[in-house]
Amino acid sequence: MTLIDRYIAAWNETDDEARAKAVAELWTEDATYTDPMADVAGHEGIAAVIAGAQDLFPGCVFTAGEVFDTHHNLARFTWHLAPTDAAEPMVVGFDVVELAEDGRIRKVLGFLDKVPS
Amino acid sequence: MTLIDRYIAAWNETDDEARAKAVAELWTEDATYTDPMADVAGHEGIAAVIAGAQDLFPGCVFTAGEVFDTHHNLARFTWHLAPTDAAEPMVVGFDVVELAEDGRIRKVLGFLDKVPS
Repeated sequence: MTLIDRYIAAWNETDDEARAKAVAELWTEDATYTDPMADVAGHEGIAAVIAGAQDLFPGCVFTAGEVFDTHHNLARFTWHLAPTDAAEPMVVGFDVVELAEDGRIRKVLGFLDKVPS
Repeated sequence: MTLIDRYIAAWNETDDEARAKAVAELWTEDATYTDPMADVAGHEGIAAVIAGAQDLFPGCVFTAGEVFDTHHNLARFTWHLAPTDAAEPMVVGFDVVELAEDGRIRKVLGFLDKVPS
């Protein structure tokens, strides 16, 4: 399972305990997550942002979009958020992720390429 | 002059002393710059990367491309590198920039959307 697959899986994890575990495995303790609607640091903050997104879009799932490229400890990729079986994503996000030396994410710089109209 | 304009101007500054001054004004002392070909920290390292790019593409100039969006302390935008008066850019870069509290850049996460064929 690639890092991006694990990242997407964490965003889809609706069980509080499993989500906290996924976040702790995927992000460093001092990791930051910033997108147009959130700017948090640490596992609890990141897990709360994920839970908030799930509450905002009930019945929707995150899927991996396009991986543009990776180099050094960086990756840039898109993700989709859509109701199951929808033809078009409701939201398209664009994330740049920086990894720490232990392979976990230490920074997510998030943007939105498509938002619900 | 916007931050992106000053950023582009620094990349076009070919005088060593003026380039060092522009870098010091634009980046924090501990700033990092990472793109597919470089991964450096600090003013001297960043100035050296800029000088190296100028050496690699003599007679070319950097211009601002598209600013996708900005939020919190982040911006994502493209830049073009082309010979003066060229119709098409030779290189298109895509940068995500994080600002420190003093308004200077503390991190550039750089990618390339187009490279010379």
